[in-house]
Amino acid sequence: MEHIRLSEAGDSVVILDQSLLPLEEKYIELTTLEEMEEAIKKLQVRGAPAIGIFAGYALAALSKQQCRPKAISSCCGASGTSDEGFVQILQAQGEVLKAARPTAVNLSWAVDRVLHAVRVEMFRARKEDPMRPNANAGARRLAEAAAREAAAIHEEDKAMCKAIAEHGLTEIQKVSAEGGHSGPIGILTHCNAGPLATSEYGTALGPILLGEEQGVDFHVFADETRPLLQGARLTTYELQKAGVDVTLICDNMASSVMQKGLIQAVFVGCDRVAANGDTANKIGTSGLAVLAKHYGIPFYVLGPSSSIDLSCPTGADIPIEERDPEEIRSKFYEKPMAPEGVSCFNPSFDVTDAALITGIITEKGICRYPYTESLGALTEASK
Amino acid sequence: MEHIRLSEAGDSVVILDQSLLPLEEKYIELTTLEEMEEAIKKLQVRGAPAIGIFAGYALAALSKQQCRPKAISSCCGASGTSDEGFVQILQAQGEVLKAARPTAVNLSWAVDRVLHAVRVEMFRARKEDPMRPNANAGARRLAEAAAREAAAIHEEDKAMCKAIAEHGLTEIQKVSAEGGHSGPIGILTHCNAGPLATSEYGTALGPILLGEEQGVDFHVFADETRPLLQGARLTTYELQKAGVDVTLICDNMASSVMQKGLIQAVFVGCDRVAANGDTANKIGTSGLAVLAKHYGIPFYVLGPSSSIDLSCPTGADIPIEERDPEEIRSKFYEKPMAPEGVSCFNPSFDVTDAALITGIITEKGICRYPYTESLGALTEASK
Repeated sequence: MEHIRLSEAGDSVVILDQSLLPLEEKYIELTTLEEMEEAIKKLQVRGAPAIGIFAGYALAALSKQQCRPKAISSCCGASGTSDEGFVQILQAQGEVLKAARPTAVNLSWAVDRVLHAVRVEMFRARKEDPMRPNANAGARRLAEAAAREAAAIHEEDKAMCKAIAEHGLTEIQKVSAEGGHSGPIGILTHCNAGPLATSEYGTALGPILLGEEQGVDFHVFADETRPLLQGARLTTYELQKAGVDVTLICDNMASSVMQKGLIQAVFVGCDRVAANGDTANKIGTSGLAVLAKHYGIPFYVLGPSSSIDLSCPTGADIPIEERDPEEIRSKFYEKPMAPEGVSCFNPSFDVTDAALITGIITEKGICRYPYTESLGALTEASK
Repeated sequence: MEHIRLSEAGDSVVILDQSLLPLEEKYIELTTLEEMEEAIKKLQVRGAPAIGIFAGYALAALSKQQCRPKAISSCCGASGTSDEGFVQILQAQGEVLKAARPTAVNLSWAVDRVLHAVRVEMFRARKEDPMRPNANAGARRLAEAAAREAAAIHEEDKAMCKAIAEHGLTEIQKVSAEGGHSGPIGILTHCNAGPLATSEYGTALGPILLGEEQGVDFHVFADETRPLLQGARLTTYELQKAGVDVTLICDNMASSVMQKGLIQAVFVGCDRVAANGDTANKIGTSGLAVLAKHYGIPFYVLGPSSSIDLSCPTGADIPIEERDPEEIRSKFYEKPMAPEGVSCFNPSFDVTDAALITGIITEKGICRYPYTESLGALTEASK
């Protein structure tokens, strides 16, 4: 079941409440703008691509509500009876959504994309009847345009994840066969780069979920990923749901499972890839890459080509956010686990040296070292 | 202040209740055998050497109680009026203490050592008066022998820790000077191998605590050490108390702080060292050794020479205990952090390859690779 979708009536959004996972699996229906705003703020929906998909459907649902007779009187002084009024209301609603997480690029991108589609429809209606340059498309038609665009955002994300999954699955099957490995393929993953953060296949988990559908056996070891425990809370949940054999470990156990020969490859997501292939991802990723190299295990980064930032020459140019020390000292615990006032260092991300990365797997294909050339060629080809 | 000591009256043991750390620093006085037994079971005292020291003082206190007029009627059917009766009672009490943690070798070793000292005193008294081969030493004299032996166990542990600390401090100052390093010396440590687990200086923290006394500046990064969080709960507490600059990190941040050049050496303790130098220690240690090698940082194991097990040829011969999955999934948390029924792999220890270890620092000196020779020479020399 889709974890983000438009309701059947089209006037509300139904999401899996991620803030309750993994203990409770509850779908909630969001109808008002306030509920939608709260869902973003309270992390009921999370993961950059997922938030974008959600925002698209939120605007589609709010558009549909404008089709009701005597709909929303207005939330910005404009009336909903003209196309212009419709768009003004929707734009104001979009601003509210954007403000719920100002740093989420996908959020404002999706909002703007739906608004643009609605405006295009408005102008198309005017052009259709040259005798009436101010003709209204009407709320129904504009709402349909919003819903179409929202669905397109979702479909494009799915197609991108599917392509990443296909490239990754082909690669791991090849590597595994070349290594003469038999039995389930052991994969170590870190943090959460699965369907919940995106759609359908996710990024780092894509080859595994796709492989499972095709009868390829995997055994995934999921790092719990301190301090926010995305691996424990979300990755194990997703894999368990998909029927994939998954074992949860503490982050400091990665060396041990690699040493035992249980891991055939490491799959991680990425937040940003520099032009030379240095990759910023969830804290702990760079350590896994060093371990993988030591134990002779291939290490893959999986993500959309939009994560590649050619304007950023190397990893040293990627700013690393430091977060609240209480995430280490007390978050999730019954009581604080370290003395009061103890100094904590809590970087969100680290940078993995390009030379440690076996391949960067995008929807457009796999790039290999030296990345300055392969990443350049990849983005060049798509221009 | 000593975290384990005999009370001034000598008839009870005063300990820092480690189960309340780091939030509450409370000394408790244990008088009855039941209280002493509970203290071991409830982890109010923990760490193999510390439990040994505690058991010694516990028997000393119980011995002193036998000096009271009409003391303990008996806990084993024997009366306390003769030396034989005294020893029988003490032996029965020792068995109760041993059973509180049957796997703790130091515990039974310390109990047997105190009992032996008391018996020696008993026989000495008999020899002193050849005319009365069954002469009693008397409760007071036997109790004094018990107290002396308990203090000796404690003093020997302190001397051993001090010697480890001195060797380690000399080494790190030399390495740091050779590397042209200025400013505080950055040390990464894992788990807890400090005074709370032993006495005074501890093992892995010894060079730091001794250095601090001598005006050598350290900045320690302490791994929180999942899943039991000994680093967060105990190491930060001990270093903060000693006025050492300490920063708590999650285990998966070690690569990041090494990459930033913040670490000049890694100091860890050890549970068992094989004849070839392979070292079993708290899970996560082997990963740190791999990272240290990658970043060109010296990696030291610190521990008593009694940890060296020449009967164990390599790390592959050291059995590794697997613990309760709930330690990963739910322990310490407000609610479980992973789905019900998820499989967890929870090994207590891992084995660090001897080739990754720069030096093994014992009270007798520093051994270096190849360890088969250097460890052999060390134990040979002390025979």
